[in-house]
Parts: sequence; structure tokens; C-alpha cells
Amino acid sequence: MSKKIGVIIDFLTDEYRAQIDKAAARGGYETEYFPDSRSAVGNVDDCEILYGHCSGKVIASAKSLKWFACCWAGVDRMCDDSLYRNKDCILTNASGAYGTTIAEHIIMVSLMLLRRQVEYSEMMRLGGWDVLTPIHSLHGARVTMLGTGDIGTEFARRLTAFHPASIVGVRRSAGQADPAFTETRTIAELDEVLARTDLLVMALPSTSETVGILSRERMAMMPKGSYVVNVGRGTAVDQEALCDALNSGHLAGASLDVVVPEPLPADHPLRAAKNILLTPHVAGNMTLGYTCELNVRMFCDNLARYFAGEPLQNVVDRRRGY
Amino acid sequence: MSKKIGVIIDFLTDEYRAQIDKAAARGGYETEYFPDSRSAVGNVDDCEILYGHCSGKVIASAKSLKWFACCWAGVDRMCDDSLYRNKDCILTNASGAYGTTIAEHIIMVSLMLLRRQVEYSEMMRLGGWDVLTPIHSLHGARVTMLGTGDIGTEFARRLTAFHPASIVGVRRSAGQADPAFTETRTIAELDEVLARTDLLVMALPSTSETVGILSRERMAMMPKGSYVVNVGRGTAVDQEALCDALNSGHLAGASLDVVVPEPLPADHPLRAAKNILLTPHVAGNMTLGYTCELNVRMFCDNLARYFAGEPLQNVVDRRRGY
Repeated sequence: MSKKIGVIIDFLTDEYRAQIDKAAARGGYETEYFPDSRSAVGNVDDCEILYGHCSGKVIASAKSLKWFACCWAGVDRMCDDSLYRNKDCILTNASGAYGTTIAEHIIMVSLMLLRRQVEYSEMMRLGGWDVLTPIHSLHGARVTMLGTGDIGTEFARRLTAFHPASIVGVRRSAGQADPAFTETRTIAELDEVLARTDLLVMALPSTSETVGILSRERMAMMPKGSYVVNVGRGTAVDQEALCDALNSGHLAGASLDVVVPEPLPADHPLRAAKNILLTPHVAGNMTLGYTCELNVRMFCDNLARYFAGEPLQNVVDRRRGY
Repeated sequence: MSKKIGVIIDFLTDEYRAQIDKAAARGGYETEYFPDSRSAVGNVDDCEILYGHCSGKVIASAKSLKWFACCWAGVDRMCDDSLYRNKDCILTNASGAYGTTIAEHIIMVSLMLLRRQVEYSEMMRLGGWDVLTPIHSLHGARVTMLGTGDIGTEFARRLTAFHPASIVGVRRSAGQADPAFTETRTIAELDEVLARTDLLVMALPSTSETVGILSRERMAMMPKGSYVVNVGRGTAVDQEALCDALNSGHLAGASLDVVVPEPLPADHPLRAAKNILLTPHVAGNMTLGYTCELNVRMFCDNLARYFAGEPLQNVVDRRRGY
């Protein structure tokens, strides 16, 4: 029986297909491509490997699955052990493919908040022409990055060029993060760090520890006039408290790329909050060619490791959630 | 008769006033503060120095003027020799005070264009939630910076952190610009450079050479799908041709902080052009505290040079225009 790899990616091109086929052939594997999860369910019995984004149903129907290479960075919905018939099935994510695009998103929305671009865009749309004062700068800003993985690191490296006063990286466990961070702290020290934060950026996976981490109490600890950016998971923020903090003016602005629920209903209170900048979970998706290229390349590299019997990159600890 | 400095700045604070008074006292000068040009006309006869932003009328009425320290970077309207009773009157500008804020503006609007943020903002405003594909990145982009002075240099230094394919600095005369530029060219070579430009950023003073420099012909030389950002002077761009290039899709987007005329009428065709991002000449104004601080500090430093009989910084050649 031939060995098979099932591929379910919605950014497939002829070029990517050729790359994947070539990498698979090196190990004597065939490939089969599915346009979406629906068409894959029931047709992946013989797939030893699955690559892409697919529903739990697909995973559960894959009787021979030994490795699911998820093309996303956030895999919280894929960490339920009961999804996998083979309990030793390896799960990898695509951490590393999204740093560039999400870092650009964070720099963009941070500047939009600090420079009051949401208000300026609305003014220009209505035919106006006026000066809003004051605006603020990344120069001299005290920035806190919650999450010091690929995304946090790529952001910190770019931010350095803007001469902030500090970039404090906050992470789960002690230890030094990338040198772009001027200081590294653990989540246990978060309260103290928040009190000296002008701009808080959040890029955390969804785990039991991170749900609700930006609580009403913690927002109150942040200085009046500070800003929040979230690109991780919507569950990390108490959204009701955020609306209150924005509408009262305690927080000067917030940018959320992730919310609960997604899509966000048109009449949801978050949409009407003061100085909010919402984007529809697109900071890190596959709309950027560079991200897609890197994603495919990372899978092909990991495939070579798999064939050689070497440890894979980006293996997810399903109990930890990332 | 006491020696006097007239100050006309709309960002005056007690702190700045104390700084200026202290610097003036070191040379035995008195200071007088005017809230605006109107209140200054006819009351600056005895001012040897004027600092700030003031109308031609104020300059023309200043009989004893030896130095006008303009707090703006662009001084094209102050270069008419007939404004000055004393033909040897020195004119300085505040080039160097605006690099930080304008560089942040350029990074912000460039990312907004590349990542289709104008469309996303409109989508979210209307209650939507969808993915637009594709978006683009500064990573790997071929960027051309027209003008390699303070603004162009500060932008190039920040841009480097985003890993563009190239940053070509185009300047009036030959010679090497800041090392952040990967290549330096003269304006005579502009046509060749435009043909390999994904993102053109313009920060030129208004002079006879720069009026209309981005002509219809030159826009046609730019690759299909490229972008234009202008933060210099509105006169540098053929606005009718720009509207055509945007509406036909030849250019994928443009961001203008400067236009002709300012303010731009509510029914001006530029406002309705496809993928345009307009801001009301605020990229470099005095809304950012850091800019104001630097502006006052630069004037006080120059004042010390003036008292010591040393050459001033930022002296403008009125015939050249900058």
C-alpha cells in the first residue's frame, strides 16, 4: 500500500503543489489535495500525514494518521486528545510563518492608535480638514509585549528602530527572550509591569492560563491614557471591561484583531466603543504571499525531517496547548 | 536700547517659555511672546530675532530683524527676498525636528496601503467581517525615497527593520546619503528608478525643480500595482494624473498628507479617488510633544551659537528654497 499525504490548504497554487509533490516524492509518498474539510471527511483513511487547516471531523476520520501539520500558529482547537484515534499522533503548528505579517500589523495599528488615525480617517471621510491635538509617538513609549514567541520577537525587533523607552517582554517562564527586549518578566510579575505600560501588545495562545488574563482589575492598573493591542486570542481580554475602560477614557484606544465571537455581530457593543480599531482576524492569515511561501517551505523542511527519522520542528504539547 | 526676541509659536507652554527666556538671558536679550501673527504685526519693530511661525506681514514689519528662526521645516513661502527689509537677514528652518514624527507617519500609511487597511476600516464601519486577498508587505518591497534629508533618513532607518528588498534614496546632487539607503541616485536618474519601485515615498521641498516632479508620464513608468506616499509639498504631484492612475488601477493606492489646495474642498475629486488615504497636513505638525521639545531645544542651541558669533545651524539658502 502506498504512503499518502493529504493536503487541505486554501492558498494552494501550482507552484506550492509542485513543491509539496517534490518533497513528498523524496520519501516515496503520494499526495492528495482537497479543496476543503467537507470534501476530505471520509476520504483520508489512508493518509499517514495531513497538512493544512482542517476540521476536527477530518482528523477524527483519519484512521492512519501519524502526523497532523497544522498550517496555523494557534492550534487550541486541535489540542483535544480525543480527536486523535492514534494517541501518539504528532501535532505541529506553523509558528514562525506569521511573525513578519503580524509584526507589521502590530506596528501599523499601534501607530494608528497613537496618531489618532481612526479619528483622522473619519474626519476625512466626512469631508473635513482639521488638526487633532495631541498625538503620541512610539519614540519614548513604554511598551509591554505579552508573549515573547515568534510574533512578539519579530515585533520587538522592528519596534527597536522607533526608539521606544522600553520593550518589556512578559512570558510564561523565567529566562531571557530575544535581545530586542530591554527586559524580560514572567506573567507572575505582570501587575507591576502593567503599571508602567503606555502600550500593551498581546500575542498569547489560548490556554487555561491566558483566558481572561487582561481582566477588569488589570486594566485599572494600567496608566490613564494607555493603549491595548491584541492579536492572540479574543478570550484573553474581558471585552465588557474593555468597552467600559475605552468609553470612560481610562484607556485611550484599543486594537483587536481577535474577538469573541468571530465574526463579531454588527450590533455588538465592541463595535461602538470609543477609539476602537477592529480588524476581522486578518493580522496573520494567509493573505500575504510571504506567509504562504514560508508556510509551505516549513512543511517541506519538516517532511524531510520526518523521512529521515529526525525530531520535527514546532511540535505542539497538546496538554500545554502550544 | 535693549535687545529683543519676538516669539510666535502656538505650542507655547510655561516650560518652553522658561527655556527660551533662560537661553535669551544668556545673551542679554529680552523676549516678547505673541499668540499669533495678527497680534505681532506692528509690534515687532524692535525685534532683532523672531522665532516661530509668522506671516510675511510680520517679517515685513520687523525693521530691525537680523534672524528669522522659522519653526517649520518647509519655508518655501518665506524665501521671497522682498519680504526682508534687511537683505542679509538670516533665515533658518527646523529641519531635524520633524524626522521622527513624519517617519512614523510614513511607516503607518505605507502599511495601511499595503495591508488594505482603508478597505478594512470601511468594512468594519459598515458592520462587516471578511478577508481581503491579497495584501502586501514591506518585507521584500522595493522602496524609493525621493528626498534623503532628515525625513527620508529617519524613515529609511526605521524601514530597514522591516527587511525591504531595497531602499533607493533619490537626491538632488550625487553623493552618498545615510547608510540606511541601500543605493543613492540623483533626480536625473529618477525615471530608471521608478520602473523598479513598489513604494514611492516623496519628501521634497517645494522648489522650481520639484513642482510637478511626479508627472503623468512618470506615474506611467511605475509598475502596475505600485504605491505613492507624499509628505513633502502637494505641488510635487500632478493630482489629476494621480486620480486617473488610482481609478484605472495602475496605482494600487496613494497616501497624501499634502495637497493643492489646503484645506482640500469636500467635493474635490481626490477625495473620491480609489484607494486614497488622505490626511490633513498633519504628518509633521506640532501635535507631537517630542517634536515641540526638539524644536525649542534646537532654537535655544542656535541662539547660543548666535550669541557666540558662530555660524548657525539650518541656514536656508533663499534662492535654493531650502
